[in-house]
Amino acid sequence: MTDLSAIEEQLNRLEIEVPSWAYGNSGTRFKVFATEGTPRTVEEKIADAAQVNRHTGLAPAVALHIPWDKHDDYAGLRQYAADLGVQIGTINSNTFQDDQYKFGSLTHHDPAVRRAAIDHHLECIEIMTATGSKDLKIWLADGTNYPGQQDMRQRQDSLTESLEEIYAALGDEQRMVLEYKFFEPAFYHTDVPDWGTSYAQVAALGDKAKVCLDTGHHAPGTNIEFIVMQLLRLGKLGSFDFNSRFYADDDLIVGAADPFQLFRIMVEVVRGGGLDEGSDLGLMLDQCHNIEEKVPGQIRSVLNVQEMTARALLLDQEALSAARQSNDVLAAHQIFMDAFYTDVRPALAAWRESRNLPADPMAAYLASGYQDTIRAERQGGQQASWGA
Amino acid sequence: MTDLSAIEEQLNRLEIEVPSWAYGNSGTRFKVFATEGTPRTVEEKIADAAQVNRHTGLAPAVALHIPWDKHDDYAGLRQYAADLGVQIGTINSNTFQDDQYKFGSLTHHDPAVRRAAIDHHLECIEIMTATGSKDLKIWLADGTNYPGQQDMRQRQDSLTESLEEIYAALGDEQRMVLEYKFFEPAFYHTDVPDWGTSYAQVAALGDKAKVCLDTGHHAPGTNIEFIVMQLLRLGKLGSFDFNSRFYADDDLIVGAADPFQLFRIMVEVVRGGGLDEGSDLGLMLDQCHNIEEKVPGQIRSVLNVQEMTARALLLDQEALSAARQSNDVLAAHQIFMDAFYTDVRPALAAWRESRNLPADPMAAYLASGYQDTIRAERQGGQQASWGA
Amino acid sequence: MTDLSAIEEQLNRLEIEVPSWAYGNSGTRFKVFATEGTPRTVEEKIADAAQVNRHTGLAPAVALHIPWDKHDDYAGLRQYAADLGVQIGTINSNTFQDDQYKFGSLTHHDPAVRRAAIDHHLECIEIMTATGSKDLKIWLADGTNYPGQQDMRQRQDSLTESLEEIYAALGDEQRMVLEYKFFEPAFYHTDVPDWGTSYAQVAALGDKAKVCLDTGHHAPGTNIEFIVMQLLRLGKLGSFDFNSRFYADDDLIVGAADPFQLFRIMVEVVRGGGLDEGSDLGLMLDQCHNIEEKVPGQIRSVLNVQEMTARALLLDQEALSAARQSNDVLAAHQIFMDAFYTDVRPALAAWRESRNLPADPMAAYLASGYQDTIRAERQGGQQASWGA
Amino acid sequence: MTDLSAIEEQLNRLEIEVPSWAYGNSGTRFKVFATEGTPRTVEEKIADAAQVNRHTGLAPAVALHIPWDKHDDYAGLRQYAADLGVQIGTINSNTFQDDQYKFGSLTHHDPAVRRAAIDHHLECIEIMTATGSKDLKIWLADGTNYPGQQDMRQRQDSLTESLEEIYAALGDEQRMVLEYKFFEPAFYHTDVPDWGTSYAQVAALGDKAKVCLDTGHHAPGTNIEFIVMQLLRLGKLGSFDFNSRFYADDDLIVGAADPFQLFRIMVEVVRGGGLDEGSDLGLMLDQCHNIEEKVPGQIRSVLNVQEMTARALLLDQEALSAARQSNDVLAAHQIFMDAFYTDVRPALAAWRESRNLPADPMAAYLASGYQDTIRAERQGGQQASWGA
Repeated sequence: MTDLSAIEEQLNRLEIEVPSWAYGNSGTRFKVFATEGTPRTVEEKIADAAQVNRHTGLAPAVALHIPWDKHDDYAGLRQYAADLGVQIGTINSNTFQDDQYKFGSLTHHDPAVRRAAIDHHLECIEIMTATGSKDLKIWLADGTNYPGQQDMRQRQDSLTESLEEIYAALGDEQRMVLEYKFFEPAFYHTDVPDWGTSYAQVAALGDKAKVCLDTGHHAPGTNIEFIVMQLLRLGKLGSFDFNSRFYADDDLIVGAADPFQLFRIMVEVVRGGGLDEGSDLGLMLDQCHNIEEKVPGQIRSVLNVQEMTARALLLDQEALSAARQSNDVLAAHQIFMDAFYTDVRPALAAWRESRNLPADPMAAYLASGYQDTIRAERQGGQQASWGA
Repeated sequence: MTDLSAIEEQLNRLEIEVPSWAYGNSGTRFKVFATEGTPRTVEEKIADAAQVNRHTGLAPAVALHIPWDKHDDYAGLRQYAADLGVQIGTINSNTFQDDQYKFGSLTHHDPAVRRAAIDHHLECIEIMTATGSKDLKIWLADGTNYPGQQDMRQRQDSLTESLEEIYAALGDEQRMVLEYKFFEPAFYHTDVPDWGTSYAQVAALGDKAKVCLDTGHHAPGTNIEFIVMQLLRLGKLGSFDFNSRFYADDDLIVGAADPFQLFRIMVEVVRGGGLDEGSDLGLMLDQCHNIEEKVPGQIRSVLNVQEMTARALLLDQEALSAARQSNDVLAAHQIFMDAFYTDVRPALAAWRESRNLPADPMAAYLASGYQDTIRAERQGGQQASWGA
Repeated sequence: MTDLSAIEEQLNRLEIEVPSWAYGNSGTRFKVFATEGTPRTVEEKIADAAQVNRHTGLAPAVALHIPWDKHDDYAGLRQYAADLGVQIGTINSNTFQDDQYKFGSLTHHDPAVRRAAIDHHLECIEIMTATGSKDLKIWLADGTNYPGQQDMRQRQDSLTESLEEIYAALGDEQRMVLEYKFFEPAFYHTDVPDWGTSYAQVAALGDKAKVCLDTGHHAPGTNIEFIVMQLLRLGKLGSFDFNSRFYADDDLIVGAADPFQLFRIMVEVVRGGGLDEGSDLGLMLDQCHNIEEKVPGQIRSVLNVQEMTARALLLDQEALSAARQSNDVLAAHQIFMDAFYTDVRPALAAWRESRNLPADPMAAYLASGYQDTIRAERQGGQQASWGA
Repeated sequence: MTDLSAIEEQLNRLEIEVPSWAYGNSGTRFKVFATEGTPRTVEEKIADAAQVNRHTGLAPAVALHIPWDKHDDYAGLRQYAADLGVQIGTINSNTFQDDQYKFGSLTHHDPAVRRAAIDHHLECIEIMTATGSKDLKIWLADGTNYPGQQDMRQRQDSLTESLEEIYAALGDEQRMVLEYKFFEPAFYHTDVPDWGTSYAQVAALGDKAKVCLDTGHHAPGTNIEFIVMQLLRLGKLGSFDFNSRFYADDDLIVGAADPFQLFRIMVEVVRGGGLDEGSDLGLMLDQCHNIEEKVPGQIRSVLNVQEMTARALLLDQEALSAARQSNDVLAAHQIFMDAFYTDVRPALAAWRESRNLPADPMAAYLASGYQDTIRAERQGGQQASWGA
């Protein structure tokens, strides 16, 4: 069994935030399949999220999505979560479902629309303060479908203005992370399509503004770990939205489509200090469990991140450095692959047991009867979904 | 003004089928924006489609989608359409919105699910007979999201069996076209991902089975006109679903994203006899007007196809052939581009006027007041949409 | 240590052919770096290839490339190889380096050029007979760079005619495999761009004609294991050219870029009977060691194929089938991943030792002194390369 | 005929720099085809380049590539060019063909290799001073082929150090442009893969450092005009390398693969002030005429840029702005397409004639006999090529 003692300090630091919306129904433009037991309320979403942490010990925070998770008592919600052993994480804004945002929000040419979108973000900051959340995440659906439709330059300038006002409202301990996305739902251009745009925008704002990297938001073939390296080097990587993809923004379970890519990303996270003491790098899931069960889908995901983190930490840096110094391509690559191919599953099961966690969280969850309980109890009401 | 007389015979043969669902609301998984005046019934969809034909003279048939367009009197519907100057075109089956098809339909490992899916197609064939439709189009959402999820080989064999039964039910004058799609809604594998799979399946069935080529259903960088050439050469190109894309299956207005690609496709259609007398090649639109007005969006689309067809027909084949014989790369390319760069818009306006059609169909539609009328009249009821 | 006894029969059947040109210098259009010890003759290439087999027991055949490996005594060459414990494998034709083929070879509009290209293939068949080779591999650089440059339809028809003549010359025990490639060196269209085209061509020829699948020759995002499944199902998968890629046809060490993809491919090879007794499926490497050492680069590659084959064979098919029957997405995926994550390296080391092979072939090769010997001995002469 | 009077001022400002290496032989890793009449010396390259300017009036500068164009008398070379009506443009460095750069140049972990690479750039700056060139263009082949091969972070930091020293050597009127490239010749990672990396590096250097955008150096599907907009907005777009592509860095004639994309790029160049008085934006070709004639290939290219620039300038900005203000998607798109579809060729022929230039530069070049002359005269010697 692999010896984890040398890497335990960093491994123990690993925390993965889970998104409230992962427990609701999601799907494609073709169909959203409903499943029994799906949460109807924010509390039920948090309860489901707490299950992930209960069985893995890895997921102590739940991200909320506003307005999907709007509540009339955020202090009470915060306490509700605390009682279940989790806290409120990132607050995610949403300007893609109101009719007024059909042609843009923070980038819109109409100041009145921008005003509404800015106000929405100011409200999100208030919710952060009320819930103890530290991060405001901004992902914009803003963009156009047809060449010529709008003026991309005006929209970029408008975005700067909008972000400046939102940034100014952040508290001393609060941050803003700006997510970029290659395409979808806009099909010709998106207003924050790449890390360069997000970086240029947040660099102009100040230290509390960072980039959010969603692993599914890149052009085909993009070397994502390079971007991880670069943003950590520039001090501007705020957080991850983890998932995996074969084609577009498939939002599959992280590590499912290309486990080696996840390994390479975690190697750069380690290299860049992302698991060092005091690091403020956020690791979050952002997935859609369209056809698989949601709670175990999330359990699987946090385990995948942990397994790849352990492999990344096990990389023999000394031997690797020596191989690199001598330009020994095959030796360096083999040392790298040896870490990837190391089967850390038994050692991580032992790690869990030493913390009174189940050796096999997937089996433990299934055996717990939780899924049957929520299927039986959650009758009636409106199942949570994206509400598209 | 460009002289069209030499190409008029083929140009006059051009007919573009429009889809009933283009007039309903559509969107992305993030949001479906509703618009005023959207049809609530099949009749209203057909009425909108008839507007496209009225102003362009190019779109005499309307494709239906079952069950979205189910009706209790198909003979009446056929007459209703005829009274508006259009006929019922392709019948499109749908096995992607019933809960039973969550994990597949014609490819499912469970014979009971396959039975239901086959029966649905048999019903579609009955509707074809009742409406006078000639083509059954099968596009399957079947596929999986995760490696290992299902047995791709079993599914391919099951597909063959299912198609055989459906094929056997076709009348003498009826055809089946099998559409392929690279991905979406399935994210790991689709059961008919490429033209090769569709071709192998329909080739095994017989002469009444053909391939349907949707211009948005290919991997990035695919040379689509090559596939057009190949399928016409093999006698197996049944029909097109026209649209355009920048990234995935964006379903934008045909010719909007890459007009030169549309030109190249039409060159191969002409080359392969697709506009010859007696050709049974179907040209259909399949688009989603998520943010633009729907009826003029369709008018714009059929005009785009006509414009590119005219340019393709104007290609100086004699000069091109000579340049090719002498391997004169620059000359051949220039002759090709000269056809593409020819501004055929004035000549096509004259072509329309000579047929008592408006010179500017977009302007004529807007001036007709139809849009205002449907906005005012179509109050209440349930707006048509994909119903995802 | 993983128990391989249940899979040993199929595992023992694994043979991977190595290409003679992998031992010569190769590079990109920007630079071909020369390395010391590079072979100058066919014999030296074969000697290097024999090293791979000596240390791994997996590579008993060497593919040749004509005219790069032309020889005046093929019977002698065959004996030379046999003395080193290897045999002559696939004969690869080459119609991409003569000036006459600048605009095409088997597809050229000029019958004289086609005649030369056909004759070259007939010569290759004679070499097959002389060397005991069973397979003729045809990869064509034929294509165009500019839209309109040539007539794709004529070229496809000419290809058919050319292949018919070559096919007719095959002996009873000889096969032809037709490779497809998405792009490069042609940039607008290639004449055999996809498996569908290769399949349609070889299906028309007869049982001795099959498709060759190079893992680096697909559009971005293509699900290659689906094609493997499909071609095995259709009885038309002749052989593989293994390598890996991040972007285009990078020709990297197989398994280096996406080890999970290699696993998925091997799962379908097993599923489709590719390792069954009597299977005639060929597994070949086709790589370019531009910057790494060549002989150990090949050793690494055959080991990668073996490791992934072992993992694929270890897949718990019974449990997987049950999970699939119950549509348990997470369970099926986990069973699949469990096989992939199994660390088979120690067991394969033991497998080797039980056959008097080195536990660590990479270390054994380095320790053997062979590399130093060839560096010292191979002075002067013309190092083998693609000769571009 | 289209009236160009309103756009003539900006149109007249259009100058396109041509690269000396376009007149030499180039190809792919599979084959470099030689052509008769190919230059053997820098002078002959410049003479060919002067032909482009002579027939189009658009190409008054020639970029050089060091060491390919090294000379012992740069003042004389400058005068030679001036006598032919052209000047020396951008100096392109080259660190991808020396053996010492096999594993990197400005990014290499070995200070001695970096030293050599920096010195090469200092020499390039001296050549700039001697030739009157204003721009130093840095494109690096630096990168790795295998995950783990080298430390991407160290290389990025080393790059910064190297660039700082080069930047410090620039004269007051000299600039540095840093080009980025997605992949090739490196296949796993490149050290400057995207505009974000180039931007972050040059932003840290100062005002004389800018980004060079090669239109063929992006991931599939990248919206290039967005990057043009963004870099002009940030004041950091130094110059273009124009070409076109279907798949990778195909280096085809600009405008050949996707003319509409070139139009969209030129619209953003105009929008961002790139043709305004005093703009220092450089427009350069970087193409490979592998199979077509080189001089007319360059003539075709500069004409393509001019044609698309004219169309972009003809865009009805007032009408477009109004359509955008009212979110009229179809109207805005149509106005945009109307400009693209305008056939400016006759008007540009007239523009040329009014300047004593040939109406049809391609025909004029062919009629001039220049090609026959150089075929006849340039016997013997070593034809220029990339020397890979």
